[in-house]
Amino acid sequence: MNTRFYNARILTMESGIAIKYGELWVKNNIIYFLGDIEKSPAPLFWDQEIDCKSNLLMPGFKNAHTHSSMTFLRSYADDLPLSEWLNKQVFPMEAKLKPEDIYHLSKLAIMEYLTSGITANFDMYFYPDMNAKASVDTGFRTVLMSGISNFNSSTKELESEYITYNHYHDLISYRLGFHAEYTASKELLQSISSIAHRYKAPVFTHNSESISEVESCIKATGMTPTEYMDSLGLFEYGGGGFHCIHLSDNDMKIFKSRGMYAVTNPGSNMKLASGIAPLQQMKSLGIPLAIGTDGAASNNCLDMFREMFLASGLQKLKYDDASAMNAEDVLYMATVGGAKAMGLDNCDILKKGRLADLILIDLNQPNMQPLNNIAKNLVYSGSKINVKLTMIDGKILYHDGVFNIGINPDEVYFEANKCINRMKNQ
Amino acid sequence: MNTRFYNARILTMESGIAIKYGELWVKNNIIYFLGDIEKSPAPLFWDQEIDCKSNLLMPGFKNAHTHSSMTFLRSYADDLPLSEWLNKQVFPMEAKLKPEDIYHLSKLAIMEYLTSGITANFDMYFYPDMNAKASVDTGFRTVLMSGISNFNSSTKELESEYITYNHYHDLISYRLGFHAEYTASKELLQSISSIAHRYKAPVFTHNSESISEVESCIKATGMTPTEYMDSLGLFEYGGGGFHCIHLSDNDMKIFKSRGMYAVTNPGSNMKLASGIAPLQQMKSLGIPLAIGTDGAASNNCLDMFREMFLASGLQKLKYDDASAMNAEDVLYMATVGGAKAMGLDNCDILKKGRLADLILIDLNQPNMQPLNNIAKNLVYSGSKINVKLTMIDGKILYHDGVFNIGINPDEVYFEANKCINRMKNQ
Repeated sequence: MNTRFYNARILTMESGIAIKYGELWVKNNIIYFLGDIEKSPAPLFWDQEIDCKSNLLMPGFKNAHTHSSMTFLRSYADDLPLSEWLNKQVFPMEAKLKPEDIYHLSKLAIMEYLTSGITANFDMYFYPDMNAKASVDTGFRTVLMSGISNFNSSTKELESEYITYNHYHDLISYRLGFHAEYTASKELLQSISSIAHRYKAPVFTHNSESISEVESCIKATGMTPTEYMDSLGLFEYGGGGFHCIHLSDNDMKIFKSRGMYAVTNPGSNMKLASGIAPLQQMKSLGIPLAIGTDGAASNNCLDMFREMFLASGLQKLKYDDASAMNAEDVLYMATVGGAKAMGLDNCDILKKGRLADLILIDLNQPNMQPLNNIAKNLVYSGSKINVKLTMIDGKILYHDGVFNIGINPDEVYFEANKCINRMKNQ
Repeated sequence: MNTRFYNARILTMESGIAIKYGELWVKNNIIYFLGDIEKSPAPLFWDQEIDCKSNLLMPGFKNAHTHSSMTFLRSYADDLPLSEWLNKQVFPMEAKLKPEDIYHLSKLAIMEYLTSGITANFDMYFYPDMNAKASVDTGFRTVLMSGISNFNSSTKELESEYITYNHYHDLISYRLGFHAEYTASKELLQSISSIAHRYKAPVFTHNSESISEVESCIKATGMTPTEYMDSLGLFEYGGGGFHCIHLSDNDMKIFKSRGMYAVTNPGSNMKLASGIAPLQQMKSLGIPLAIGTDGAASNNCLDMFREMFLASGLQKLKYDDASAMNAEDVLYMATVGGAKAMGLDNCDILKKGRLADLILIDLNQPNMQPLNNIAKNLVYSGSKINVKLTMIDGKILYHDGVFNIGINPDEVYFEANKCINRMKNQ
């Protein structure tokens, strides 16, 4: 399937926010040519030609931390204190999940990702087989990771998943990880560290989302979560943390020296009153950053535009400085930063030879006008309404509001409602 | 023009967030019947019949504080310290505005309001004649107010506008107001107070947006801005304040005793690092609340969904409590609260006899599924993508992405770009 995009503004994200004008050609799943038509090679046989009408082609957003299947708890348990939310609502409902629920609920999340221009997710949840199948069946790109803790799975299973899902399908990969320091015994962490050393692999986990989690770790080990996990060798080959709100200066030094990614989840952190991550400080230290939506149980939507606005705006509030965390840096985090955190170096930017994971942004909408600064428009004013088209691996999965994911959207909604209604009556 | 909506979920906002199922009939510009078809009167002659497909009809959002014409500065001056933004970017560019610019730039804002389900705005800016004309020509409902200060206009003009625009067109009304305490002399404020007393009219103004503004007022008068303005009799007949971030306990007592509205602008306040208004405290005191987008120069989008999420989420952060400011209260603020602040008591809720200012929300989108709680979905997960239809005064102005506002959108975009480009070269 070869696709020609023409009359396009193109934001490659290869070097800053410079915008070209021209064509972008996709041969099968690869970007084959990009730029001025006069410098193009001979045309291919086109299966489809799309007039971009001066709208903007750019790399798809990378959702660097989420729990896709938690869509079943969207707007189910809100406006509650954190402990009540987690212990009385989330955990009891999760215990009722069946494997096939994960398949349907992941599809619902994938549909929302497509409407928000997200072309890949970094997903921590149960039943990776169902998660992977949902992504492959819809055509979505997913980097899986384990949510292993003292209460589920085993390191044997973890290692087996690592091998299986790194040789499963072009759309699927797998990175080592675990739920969190506070739900893992020292023995479990040591065992995960051994696997990381065996494969020279980076390791990812929830890190310092709440103050109480940090205080408990210091009380038990004399170290912060980052210091403690690092002391066990978990980050010998890098990796990263999700949330990263309550980090000490020394924690940030460890992130920097290990080349670890801090993945921020500002919408979820705000709604659960967890706090504001020190992104501006991390940026100035050179810690690589990425953005995730977290799951729909806490956020409640899976929208990179909202996360981008918050990733900037909350820093301005935190540091009492309207110039903190500018739009260009946030746009990088949401695209290239995420891709690198997830190990997706082949779909980070728009460039000849890269995978065709891209989106078409509708600039002919009132919220994108006038065209003073397209990058700032995207971060500060962008919305799902601006996503005209989402292509993954050379295939258009979403175009002008229509999904091309091998299933009727109504079926996905039906299954999601059936699932939560069964649980409510269980 | 008579319109029949059928197969609808209906959120009237008359009593909490209860949702009915049935029909809503519009006769000319009035809601003629609402509810179960079996209890309906004889059918009218229908000009149009709309199958809502179980989607949600609800009152339109009321944007209770904005500067519509500032769309020309969207993404023009961001990521700058507040003083530099205002003095070096906003003020010099505003000085270059011509009356006809206001007409075009207001239309651009109106288009964005329609995409976000906003059916009325409370607009403070220059050239009310152009502002009113843009609203009437597009079919939009606008409550005008003056931005009078020491540097523009006169109280004679203010009084003349008050009379003119309260007898101008069904879509237009006018409330007394002024820019802010810190841009008005005591004589000017006393003169405005006299007009308020003459007409027994409420008065609105920017209030306590920044700490420095509050400190300067205390230094100059020994009173906070709210205390000082109230001491001049400005709020004898109520009114309200925009932003209301840095209010003292006594300020809130004055708001409460005068029945004054606090209109919050959380997106703008975040982006300009102004702070977080104490909405939760005001709510507990019984101060009436409403929500505004502020202008596109600071926000940068004009989206009630984003403002609703922030109106709740920022309170959770501020009070370190995930249960602060729940979705139901925010939804009330964005609809009924705004209508009451703006004096639009005839289009606050969906009810027989009220004006047909309403929107149709698309629930058949992934971000609205499953249907655990529609009100929470709207506030925490809603997006412009969910606005299927916006009707004002019985006329559909926006439907499935198509505008019906008497002008081609491309012309509006062209004029907005022409305007800012002229200024850049001036």
